[in-house]
Amino acid sequence: MGGSKNLKALWGGRFERSPGRFLTEFGASLPVDRRMWEEDIRGSVAHARMLAAQGIITPEDAEEIVSGLFGIREEIKAGEFEWDIADEDVHMAIERVLTERIGPAGARLHTGRSRNDQVATDTRLYVKKRARDIAYRISGVREELLAAAEEHAHCVVPGYTHLQRAQPVLLSHHLLAYGWMLSRDFTRMRHAFEAADACPLGAAALAGTTYPIDRDMVAGQLGFSAVSENSMDAVSDRDFLVDLVYACAMCQTHLSRLAEELILWSSEEFGFVVMDDAYSTGSSIMPQKKNPDFAELVRGKTGSVIGSLVALLVTLKGLPLAYNKDMQEDKRVAFDAIDTLADCLQVVQGMLGSLSFNTARMREAADSGFMAATDLADYLVGKGMPFREAHEVVGKMVLELEKSGRSLHDLSAEGFAGFSCEFDPDVSEITDVDRQVGRRGSAGGTGHDPVRKQIAQMRTSIAGDEAWLEATQDPE
Amino acid sequence: MGGSKNLKALWGGRFERSPGRFLTEFGASLPVDRRMWEEDIRGSVAHARMLAAQGIITPEDAEEIVSGLFGIREEIKAGEFEWDIADEDVHMAIERVLTERIGPAGARLHTGRSRNDQVATDTRLYVKKRARDIAYRISGVREELLAAAEEHAHCVVPGYTHLQRAQPVLLSHHLLAYGWMLSRDFTRMRHAFEAADACPLGAAALAGTTYPIDRDMVAGQLGFSAVSENSMDAVSDRDFLVDLVYACAMCQTHLSRLAEELILWSSEEFGFVVMDDAYSTGSSIMPQKKNPDFAELVRGKTGSVIGSLVALLVTLKGLPLAYNKDMQEDKRVAFDAIDTLADCLQVVQGMLGSLSFNTARMREAADSGFMAATDLADYLVGKGMPFREAHEVVGKMVLELEKSGRSLHDLSAEGFAGFSCEFDPDVSEITDVDRQVGRRGSAGGTGHDPVRKQIAQMRTSIAGDEAWLEATQDPE
Amino acid sequence: MGGSKNLKALWGGRFERSPGRFLTEFGASLPVDRRMWEEDIRGSVAHARMLAAQGIITPEDAEEIVSGLFGIREEIKAGEFEWDIADEDVHMAIERVLTERIGPAGARLHTGRSRNDQVATDTRLYVKKRARDIAYRISGVREELLAAAEEHAHCVVPGYTHLQRAQPVLLSHHLLAYGWMLSRDFTRMRHAFEAADACPLGAAALAGTTYPIDRDMVAGQLGFSAVSENSMDAVSDRDFLVDLVYACAMCQTHLSRLAEELILWSSEEFGFVVMDDAYSTGSSIMPQKKNPDFAELVRGKTGSVIGSLVALLVTLKGLPLAYNKDMQEDKRVAFDAIDTLADCLQVVQGMLGSLSFNTARMREAADSGFMAATDLADYLVGKGMPFREAHEVVGKMVLELEKSGRSLHDLSAEGFAGFSCEFDPDVSEITDVDRQVGRRGSAGGTGHDPVRKQIAQMRTSIAGDEAWLEATQDPE
Amino acid sequence: MGGSKNLKALWGGRFERSPGRFLTEFGASLPVDRRMWEEDIRGSVAHARMLAAQGIITPEDAEEIVSGLFGIREEIKAGEFEWDIADEDVHMAIERVLTERIGPAGARLHTGRSRNDQVATDTRLYVKKRARDIAYRISGVREELLAAAEEHAHCVVPGYTHLQRAQPVLLSHHLLAYGWMLSRDFTRMRHAFEAADACPLGAAALAGTTYPIDRDMVAGQLGFSAVSENSMDAVSDRDFLVDLVYACAMCQTHLSRLAEELILWSSEEFGFVVMDDAYSTGSSIMPQKKNPDFAELVRGKTGSVIGSLVALLVTLKGLPLAYNKDMQEDKRVAFDAIDTLADCLQVVQGMLGSLSFNTARMREAADSGFMAATDLADYLVGKGMPFREAHEVVGKMVLELEKSGRSLHDLSAEGFAGFSCEFDPDVSEITDVDRQVGRRGSAGGTGHDPVRKQIAQMRTSIAGDEAWLEATQDPE
Repeated sequence: MGGSKNLKALWGGRFERSPGRFLTEFGASLPVDRRMWEEDIRGSVAHARMLAAQGIITPEDAEEIVSGLFGIREEIKAGEFEWDIADEDVHMAIERVLTERIGPAGARLHTGRSRNDQVATDTRLYVKKRARDIAYRISGVREELLAAAEEHAHCVVPGYTHLQRAQPVLLSHHLLAYGWMLSRDFTRMRHAFEAADACPLGAAALAGTTYPIDRDMVAGQLGFSAVSENSMDAVSDRDFLVDLVYACAMCQTHLSRLAEELILWSSEEFGFVVMDDAYSTGSSIMPQKKNPDFAELVRGKTGSVIGSLVALLVTLKGLPLAYNKDMQEDKRVAFDAIDTLADCLQVVQGMLGSLSFNTARMREAADSGFMAATDLADYLVGKGMPFREAHEVVGKMVLELEKSGRSLHDLSAEGFAGFSCEFDPDVSEITDVDRQVGRRGSAGGTGHDPVRKQIAQMRTSIAGDEAWLEATQDPE
Repeated sequence: MGGSKNLKALWGGRFERSPGRFLTEFGASLPVDRRMWEEDIRGSVAHARMLAAQGIITPEDAEEIVSGLFGIREEIKAGEFEWDIADEDVHMAIERVLTERIGPAGARLHTGRSRNDQVATDTRLYVKKRARDIAYRISGVREELLAAAEEHAHCVVPGYTHLQRAQPVLLSHHLLAYGWMLSRDFTRMRHAFEAADACPLGAAALAGTTYPIDRDMVAGQLGFSAVSENSMDAVSDRDFLVDLVYACAMCQTHLSRLAEELILWSSEEFGFVVMDDAYSTGSSIMPQKKNPDFAELVRGKTGSVIGSLVALLVTLKGLPLAYNKDMQEDKRVAFDAIDTLADCLQVVQGMLGSLSFNTARMREAADSGFMAATDLADYLVGKGMPFREAHEVVGKMVLELEKSGRSLHDLSAEGFAGFSCEFDPDVSEITDVDRQVGRRGSAGGTGHDPVRKQIAQMRTSIAGDEAWLEATQDPE
Repeated sequence: MGGSKNLKALWGGRFERSPGRFLTEFGASLPVDRRMWEEDIRGSVAHARMLAAQGIITPEDAEEIVSGLFGIREEIKAGEFEWDIADEDVHMAIERVLTERIGPAGARLHTGRSRNDQVATDTRLYVKKRARDIAYRISGVREELLAAAEEHAHCVVPGYTHLQRAQPVLLSHHLLAYGWMLSRDFTRMRHAFEAADACPLGAAALAGTTYPIDRDMVAGQLGFSAVSENSMDAVSDRDFLVDLVYACAMCQTHLSRLAEELILWSSEEFGFVVMDDAYSTGSSIMPQKKNPDFAELVRGKTGSVIGSLVALLVTLKGLPLAYNKDMQEDKRVAFDAIDTLADCLQVVQGMLGSLSFNTARMREAADSGFMAATDLADYLVGKGMPFREAHEVVGKMVLELEKSGRSLHDLSAEGFAGFSCEFDPDVSEITDVDRQVGRRGSAGGTGHDPVRKQIAQMRTSIAGDEAWLEATQDPE
Repeated sequence: MGGSKNLKALWGGRFERSPGRFLTEFGASLPVDRRMWEEDIRGSVAHARMLAAQGIITPEDAEEIVSGLFGIREEIKAGEFEWDIADEDVHMAIERVLTERIGPAGARLHTGRSRNDQVATDTRLYVKKRARDIAYRISGVREELLAAAEEHAHCVVPGYTHLQRAQPVLLSHHLLAYGWMLSRDFTRMRHAFEAADACPLGAAALAGTTYPIDRDMVAGQLGFSAVSENSMDAVSDRDFLVDLVYACAMCQTHLSRLAEELILWSSEEFGFVVMDDAYSTGSSIMPQKKNPDFAELVRGKTGSVIGSLVALLVTLKGLPLAYNKDMQEDKRVAFDAIDTLADCLQVVQGMLGSLSFNTARMREAADSGFMAATDLADYLVGKGMPFREAHEVVGKMVLELEKSGRSLHDLSAEGFAGFSCEFDPDVSEITDVDRQVGRRGSAGGTGHDPVRKQIAQMRTSIAGDEAWLEATQDPE
């Protein structure tokens, strides 16, 4: 068993027997952490260069290490690297092959570091990359929402509370609401990025190292803006990963709300949107079916992302300092959440971009029923009636109309006056759906003016986010 | 794109464009559900035979279908079947290939059923299989615990509450406590099995079918003890899967408690056990380290199993009837929990079987300190003192001894008498550790007699469980 | 501080200083566990009687204890008992007052037991009571569903998958689906009851006791069907509580699905039901609003019940044997989940009982669109066409009709024939909504016959459940 | 109440209480949200003043409203306000009483707002207050840790990984690790504060209002730094609450780690610390017990805080825009998490402040065993041996010593040389525990110098946090 020999070579001096195949696979994190190969190599290169700069290893050794690592990097990129589960993890896999190839110099790479700080470094680099990537995708969805909001600037749609029609709103306004949710999600991704942005390399096993290393130099090479302050914390801290998964859970929850609406809106009962065929699937048995499968999947996947957040917190609960093997479980669940959200953002962006809005049906729905009731009450207030009284008058009007199967549009000027002598003939303007919307001119309201302003605000907000993405691009 | 053609062939009549590769992969459940290929084929075979028996298809068609499916079964077993992600799921993949091979007869297999009842059937068969398998593994761990309990029948160890030494107990007694936890886990696996034990096939898409099918015949062939009573419930019920994952979460939580103890016990501070080298790993930097990695992993994996339970419940929350695509997410998280627990049970069984107990150190720990305090109080009660008073007297004795750095063994008969005149010279028997244990002869207590009885009870309990395993073996 | 004096009296011999008010309140479980006062007294009475029967205390002492406890019981019932947070928990509160009143005999009650087994006993008695109570309420909701199913035996409603209209079903059938979900929830409550049904009293602190107690006698008096087998497990086992909360979480998830449907159905877009005014509320600003608040609350409370389940599992994760103080946190979260579900079941029963079904609108919806498509495909299969081909033919028909804004009812016999020559004039029968439903005569399907049978099955099932409720009534 | 009579007639026979009362209590949020009375009054005062400033109500009305509200405020403070559950929530309760007292002016207060934006405003104000309060408590714990770190600047203790002794560290270093965790928690509290720091008042029900309100003026009065940009988002956004509860969950998880260590350290086996009597409790049966109950409770409460986070996310999952009643459930679970953490921080601060460190025992443990192994390997590296070889040599040495029951201190210079000729007599310096610690001079390491720097860094960090607390103090 080559695998166990390798293990023996690396930390086996103290051991007499090696674990069997089952245990090797059970204990290995390689299938999960090998995706961090690029980060691992970057970290090792920076470490080797620093060791040489500090005179801990010779420049020749550093040169050999770096070019050996570059060779491995090309091989992995090309899909030609042979991963061996017996290596346990990505760190061992790469170091073993390096040492096989370049000999003693490879064996000097691990000077002044440990797998504990190495895995922390790799994971932080990886979290920074993925947090940016997700932030980028969030930006993409926001742009899609913004484009749709601009395109449908005059479409009215019923605004709901409690899934009951409440007041007509602009479709733009409704869509922009999601844009602001996602804006906060972008900020959470930034926070996760910042939480990860301190270099733990040099913490070694838990206590720091006896070698005269230069941690700032390593951090600088790797694009970290700081070094971690405490070596025990450095190797046992996974907060940045939980922060990222929390940010994913919130964002996915937002997507679940949008997905729910798209599912409702594409039902026959609502009929507000038609999903593109590419975002729908059929039934193996019912030939007429066109199901919003992708929106449902986005909603359904919320479960597993919340589950990942739970998994991480539970894993960390009650662990004493410093590193414990339990922490190896962090990456599997975290990566799953990150991948899920990344995919869902892509799906949502495409789904929104290819969605048809049935604006006629939306308008029709917005103009029926009793959604002008608040405005009628406000009208009475305008005539001097206290709001609570006006509310009562209009409530009674609605009840009576509903009982007789009529809507507000069925009411003549005299009909109105029958409910309150304050109603003048000009009341008909009140129930006009466009004017209802137009009257809501308060800041952040659904009126045409505030929505126009809002669109500009969101454009500025997206620009700011994208500037951050630009600024945090990797040096390499 | 061959993939989209396949889709088109199966449900695409209504559709004009097909989703691209990304969406195909995002929406496909094949990578997850293909492990249910055996169940899918069993279900299809039973369905085809019933269709023929009822005259819905011809015997010849049924014959062709069955032998076609058997051919595919062999191919999959041999690893030669070509899975195509464009098929979406295991059902489509198998049916497509079948139809390609046998023509029109294959196209008749889906008569009177839908993917909705088909996936429910496959998943129930699979849950029954895995629930039994996990139950079997639980039994294995219990036997290991029982063997260890029998081997160490006379070893005393401190019993802890609040991680403070409380009263000495037999090591057997301590180990058997886990045997009873696992006994309850076995029962939960039975309950999950029973929850899955009703055949949904025939519910079709959601409303039942217009064909004169015989559901009892299908259920009988598949080893189900009943048919589901309501077709809408049948296609939207995933309770059995949640039940199984809940059972996994409880069992994994039990294992986390055992793992925690083994981690504590293998620390230098406790020193009660030595892990076999096969269940330990070293450090890449600290040559002396021998870490209980596998126990830590078992503890750490509790997070993801609880996370899976959360994921399932969240996914189901608020879903209207009947089938929704969200439900496709059930299997990925559930299978993950099932696999994790199955592996952990195997690890724990091996770990226990190869564990060395440092019984001398355990005994020494059990015999030091103040663990005889309760017995001393009981002694005073025996002399007529109310328990609360006795508790007070002994509490003060402990405080004074502790302050002067002494233990109970350092106290002479006169010393005792100084705390209460009720203490006679025979008090020394009270502090003897074996007698302390021996005195706890109440049923279920740690005395030698009740523990002997308990071992017999557990043997009976395991035998009962194994009889159930025997009785529920698959007909096939 | 009188409070701390009390503490001192009961376990304080070893202590020099007492915690302050803040710590007393932080550490006390009394506000949570005092609701178990009845169970605590029952347990103490049984224990005292057994102690006397075994000659451990005198009959006179037992008599004094029992009548003292009965006095306290009446006082608590009458709301006159003075609870003092300084007593920490319900056990101490009652025992302290007892001892203050009857003197030395009270101080002998705690002989041969500990708070560890006492709290386990109380909690198990309480779980048994609440599991039965919830089961009873589940039965009530099922009866309500059954009554509605019988009343609306001929009403058709669209059956949905993916929230798209799929096939027409009987409203009865739809409602009964929830009846079966709740049937499984009843079973889970039984399992939780059975998990709690073993008496831990006599396990004492963790190791059993030195007194010659008779555990079977105590168990018998308390209505337990067994005694726990291992004292360490007995004091650290909370599985029965997690089982109950899991059962609550599943049941609440089922209620969330029903609530979601009622919310959808009471929207203007669906318009299938009208909530009773008592189950609706208005808006402080919009006079026309009638919101399904109670259904929303039932759906919304699912979060906290799932949260309670998580809380329990997390609390238990990684705890070594035997009792740890963490376990005190079990009751607060568990009681919260139990109370929430109990209330929600009461709300749902009332909501269903007062609901108006708009059967005309349901029928209209069920008869529109393309829900006969599956039947049309089956019709073609009946003519000899393989199912997959028939599915394709009908799919194309739907696409073309939809594009031209027509429904199946707009298609003449010739129109049908234009899509396939297999369509004969009798095809019009196929699209009749009642016949569509009627044709689904397979067992468990939505046809009138199978639904009639299903109603009978559910009546039998409820009767069986109620027989269990009868059989497990408390002896007292 | 006619409603309840009807209900009683319909399903009340089965219940003891009438649905009227029961439903009122079930639906009311008053018991939970009344704690936000101060925020509610502040919001109403600001709103009334703005209404007057904008000429929407008269200055006289505003005056009456404001003085009426101030009167109510004093009454509530004094505990004399009569809360009536029939008012549903804190907003209605206060507005009703106001209107009863001042008449029509009170009825004008609700002009241009809705309960939807009102509750969002109150909750945001409350979140800002509590986030600051928790941040303040976090700072307190950090100061306690810093003080302990300074006091024990020379105490060495074993550093653990995998709960195995790894390398000696300074106790200061170990304690400071928690200080950095809490530093991140402080930042999360800031983020939650900032997420809440936008004023939603003026969003009205969901669409904004028709009155010419001045939202900036209201925001300014209430100390918000911005107004929310979109009215639909404003009333349906609860992100800030989830952010706060997430921050609580992370912080509580950190406390659980500290609690775990204190429990371990106060066990007889470790014996590193002695809890103050005030932070310990005894046993009702075992007179010698002194249990670290408060640390256990802190650890145990982690479950419910994580449960609260789950509850919130689950509640929000899949909710369409805008406000839904489900959201009423947010506060109960969130407040519970906030209160729990606030209490736990107070407990932990007190516990740390009163803890006795057994520094002699720590030092003894740090100086035994094989914790110098890494340094020995580094020593060999210093002689030119590649690290991996050195690791192997020392690993074998440990194995052999362990087998013969010896430690490194038992090895003479010749003994060392027997394992490698590179070992010179100066090797004895390597195994000296203080020098081991001292050698780890890398930044962030456990050496005396870097720890001194770290203490200064933490002081600066705390000062920065406290400056933020100062800067965000409420204007009022």
